[in-house]
Amino acid sequence: MTLGLKGTLSLQREGVTIDLDVQSWPAELRFKLTRVGVTGVKKPVDVTRSDGTITLTANFDIYVDLPSTMKGSHLSRNLEVVNEIVEESVRAPVSSLEDLCSDIARRLLTRHEYASCSEVKTKADYFLERQTPLGKKTTEHYLLMATAHARRDSDIALLKSIGVEVVGMTACPCAMETIRHNLDLEGRLSGPDTPIITHNQRNRTTLLIEVPEGFEVEANDLIDMVEQSLSAPTYEILKRADEAEVVKRAHEEPRFVEDVVREILTRLLKRYADFPDQTQVWVRSNSEESIHKHNAEAERITTLGELRK
Amino acid sequence: MTLGLKGTLSLQREGVTIDLDVQSWPAELRFKLTRVGVTGVKKPVDVTRSDGTITLTANFDIYVDLPSTMKGSHLSRNLEVVNEIVEESVRAPVSSLEDLCSDIARRLLTRHEYASCSEVKTKADYFLERQTPLGKKTTEHYLLMATAHARRDSDIALLKSIGVEVVGMTACPCAMETIRHNLDLEGRLSGPDTPIITHNQRNRTTLLIEVPEGFEVEANDLIDMVEQSLSAPTYEILKRADEAEVVKRAHEEPRFVEDVVREILTRLLKRYADFPDQTQVWVRSNSEESIHKHNAEAERITTLGELRK
Amino acid sequence: MTLGLKGTLSLQREGVTIDLDVQSWPAELRFKLTRVGVTGVKKPVDVTRSDGTITLTANFDIYVDLPSTMKGSHLSRNLEVVNEIVEESVRAPVSSLEDLCSDIARRLLTRHEYASCSEVKTKADYFLERQTPLGKKTTEHYLLMATAHARRDSDIALLKSIGVEVVGMTACPCAMETIRHNLDLEGRLSGPDTPIITHNQRNRTTLLIEVPEGFEVEANDLIDMVEQSLSAPTYEILKRADEAEVVKRAHEEPRFVEDVVREILTRLLKRYADFPDQTQVWVRSNSEESIHKHNAEAERITTLGELRK
Amino acid sequence: MTLGLKGTLSLQREGVTIDLDVQSWPAELRFKLTRVGVTGVKKPVDVTRSDGTITLTANFDIYVDLPSTMKGSHLSRNLEVVNEIVEESVRAPVSSLEDLCSDIARRLLTRHEYASCSEVKTKADYFLERQTPLGKKTTEHYLLMATAHARRDSDIALLKSIGVEVVGMTACPCAMETIRHNLDLEGRLSGPDTPIITHNQRNRTTLLIEVPEGFEVEANDLIDMVEQSLSAPTYEILKRADEAEVVKRAHEEPRFVEDVVREILTRLLKRYADFPDQTQVWVRSNSEESIHKHNAEAERITTLGELRK
Repeated sequence: MTLGLKGTLSLQREGVTIDLDVQSWPAELRFKLTRVGVTGVKKPVDVTRSDGTITLTANFDIYVDLPSTMKGSHLSRNLEVVNEIVEESVRAPVSSLEDLCSDIARRLLTRHEYASCSEVKTKADYFLERQTPLGKKTTEHYLLMATAHARRDSDIALLKSIGVEVVGMTACPCAMETIRHNLDLEGRLSGPDTPIITHNQRNRTTLLIEVPEGFEVEANDLIDMVEQSLSAPTYEILKRADEAEVVKRAHEEPRFVEDVVREILTRLLKRYADFPDQTQVWVRSNSEESIHKHNAEAERITTLGELRK
Repeated sequence: MTLGLKGTLSLQREGVTIDLDVQSWPAELRFKLTRVGVTGVKKPVDVTRSDGTITLTANFDIYVDLPSTMKGSHLSRNLEVVNEIVEESVRAPVSSLEDLCSDIARRLLTRHEYASCSEVKTKADYFLERQTPLGKKTTEHYLLMATAHARRDSDIALLKSIGVEVVGMTACPCAMETIRHNLDLEGRLSGPDTPIITHNQRNRTTLLIEVPEGFEVEANDLIDMVEQSLSAPTYEILKRADEAEVVKRAHEEPRFVEDVVREILTRLLKRYADFPDQTQVWVRSNSEESIHKHNAEAERITTLGELRK
Repeated sequence: MTLGLKGTLSLQREGVTIDLDVQSWPAELRFKLTRVGVTGVKKPVDVTRSDGTITLTANFDIYVDLPSTMKGSHLSRNLEVVNEIVEESVRAPVSSLEDLCSDIARRLLTRHEYASCSEVKTKADYFLERQTPLGKKTTEHYLLMATAHARRDSDIALLKSIGVEVVGMTACPCAMETIRHNLDLEGRLSGPDTPIITHNQRNRTTLLIEVPEGFEVEANDLIDMVEQSLSAPTYEILKRADEAEVVKRAHEEPRFVEDVVREILTRLLKRYADFPDQTQVWVRSNSEESIHKHNAEAERITTLGELRK
Repeated sequence: MTLGLKGTLSLQREGVTIDLDVQSWPAELRFKLTRVGVTGVKKPVDVTRSDGTITLTANFDIYVDLPSTMKGSHLSRNLEVVNEIVEESVRAPVSSLEDLCSDIARRLLTRHEYASCSEVKTKADYFLERQTPLGKKTTEHYLLMATAHARRDSDIALLKSIGVEVVGMTACPCAMETIRHNLDLEGRLSGPDTPIITHNQRNRTTLLIEVPEGFEVEANDLIDMVEQSLSAPTYEILKRADEAEVVKRAHEEPRFVEDVVREILTRLLKRYADFPDQTQVWVRSNSEESIHKHNAEAERITTLGELRK
């Protein structure tokens, strides 16, 4: 798509070499660029897990940086690298989306010899079999995400992460408290464990964690942690008894978005107790408030080390 | 953008006339087209109402049909027509978004002399001052929409409509019933009017009604009708007592999406009792279910006459 | 999720039958509804084709109508039906997305005994291997869509359709003509076949065709027809010589959105010459104009019979 | 919506004080949060400029941080602050969107006495009158954005920025070079200044710059800088001669996304030569490639000081 060259560029086509003159590129434009690449690249990719191979439709953004001495980045190389890695993964299975991204990020630095760092981000639909409270099987939809950053030093340094986006349910503790208090004043509280009404809503929570070298993170565990931190998970099929059960559980665990994030942070600390202090984590919970037209959101961007203090 | 011509086209530019040869257009391609036009045209438009002039940022789709004898439609004329009408509306105020669309639709037929019908659709953000249950003022956000269709007969026949999209709240009657029944079985129902928990959620309801010649529809009335048909309206600011009140009201009026649509239909029949039978109405209610990852939706497309049967 | 009943509803749970009283449902609300259902249901589905089984991530909208005598539709049945059909397709392969939709539509009428019609719509990412002009292999991304409508008569009448959305390229014939004329006036036209500049852009074209009983439509053919009707297809990877070739071809085949739609209509007529007259077709082409902030769009909604006149 | 308290919370309603017990909040959940707030808040806001007052429909995200000792953030205060500032702006005009955001950010810290920092982001549709190459007036659509961050130190430290998103056109220099070379080889290049075909497309470029204390940035200047850095601006209405002119200019200034970003950086350096070194700038250019289904993107995140080196 674009050309990147210092002075001349050679194009072999049917035996012909073309030298393109780009000497005229003015000095005043010689700034380096933070990232140059392609966005919205959709690819089917295979990931091989303990229980078989799954095919994901992944949406990639793929970048390298660009030094001030280069006019353009060779964008078609980004696509070639993705294709090579995806093809190789058919023969030599890749066990995770973050490893696939890492392989791409590493090879980008080999192919873009002028780049000092590379960046790969991807998202894909994902499905898991779940059980409703009363034991019925359902298939639930999630989003997987993964990122990888590579930096050229003496060797290539890699930072990769895996994440999930989970849709679930939050019930508001605040409205519940006020309503309980009001009922109490009116002498209408039948017992301490009577379920009290409140507003509840669809919540969208994102959890992303760095996977340090030599460690492993299972995306399904991340989904579990998020679902346990919400007021209740949501399900595709709920017959009436199951529906009542989900509603009841959500009201037994009312949660602000702040609570959801903190519950997840607590679970992360326990689950990844052996991970190094510098491991980065990002948690965001967004409730599509049923009593407002806007959303409520809480977020923590930090490291496991900070959380351990 | 495109050229539309029978045989030749003349272009006046600096005194020069250009005749473009399009005779070579093959007969096998001579199909008429249902609609040809431009989409995503954003324009600030002024609408003058009893309480002053409001400026809306409207997003237009603007089409005419194309006969089989024309290679292309003069798309730039669509933009010229919109601009003229919008400019004229500054001097001679337009009182509604649907009248603005009608003016555009009518003029499209004058300008595209080859077209037999035209079509204009628009959407715009809209705000109204509301009161919370306990009387605090808030500003609430809605979407306005309008459409106009013109058809060239002996005269030009016009069909215009005005609509709204309203975000509000629904509480599910079904889960509430099951839970009431369960509490009853367990002897934990303190009284017949104890509020019973259920799932509730953000709901997005759309109501569009034809405005017959000689009649008027006030968009604010449509918003009122939708908000009265939901379990509860939603508000930008709710301090604790107001929040409890909204939650309480929603639980006193649990509604399926089916109920929301039918409540609106009932209100439409009463409010527009004098409108002709052939008046078209479209109502759709979509609840972003808090217990599922998918939405529930109900819709009725009909005429007032059908509803009156 | 919702309850639908005439008078009473029975819920079996742990041996208990609950009769819910909904007699109080007021007569003034007894309107039938055009459609009631669920939207945004994401499911992995397997479709078995001559060259193997592909797994698609399909996004479904699933509806039935609702008579005036029913308060609500049993929405969970929609999800149960989808799940059953999807599960059965693992054992007894389904050969197309439209057949999958038909199976769902038909079973919806068995399960919703009160409904007179049902409707299923789906979309899914889809990939095909293509060749660039100079013969390099690439994997290209498309959208597949399918719909099915079932109507209960003496028997169940079915109408199903298959469609595609294709991203490609259009080059504008109008600007090209004006510029050729200007160059000619200035005596700068080197020859009749010198490529003339014009604006070109990303185009998104949708083609949907009914699949009549006893006939078959191959989605890949639809994609071919659209790509042949654009100025040029687009490719994931284009090294410089291929890039030049694609640009050259696009300028040899400048196309308005009107042209794209008509080219497709011509191809449909030839390809489906044996299809019945009443076969419905829908073609829409939208160019994301590079010289404007808005889009140009042309559309034809018709039957093969109309096109044959 | 949420409650935030150390131990107890008092609610005054009709003379009653309620003390809610939240002592039970477990220590293991006491993490501070990076940001807690509301997203998607739509408000009409007035900004008074030299040439009159314009009403913008702004979409706000509004956050404060939350210490580990607080269970929840008082989200309704965020809305109250926005409303107060917007209402005050009617009486005492605010001259820019970034000043409006600053006022909100500052007041958030007064109102959320527990917060150490606050953050406000907004976006709004914006229109400017432009002239086509041949002098016709058009109204063009842009996006305005503004951000403000406040930090509580001895005093309140503020960082604000203003930005724009501009849709324009890029023509690819690389394809043009290859095609010029090919034409040259074939002896078909009529002259050095013959316009050479290439692919061109819609481009979306974002430019955001910090507005340091005591300095001013005019959003219209930012729009000018972006439009001058593209291959060509785009226009709502282009009759044939103007259309040819825009296409010609775009082909005289072919630009990669890398070029667009660097052109803007050069203009920023000249225009804001007196701004301090630490002034932050963010530039991103995204071309919706007409020959690919994916986009090309370049980005620079830096300071004026870095650019001056």
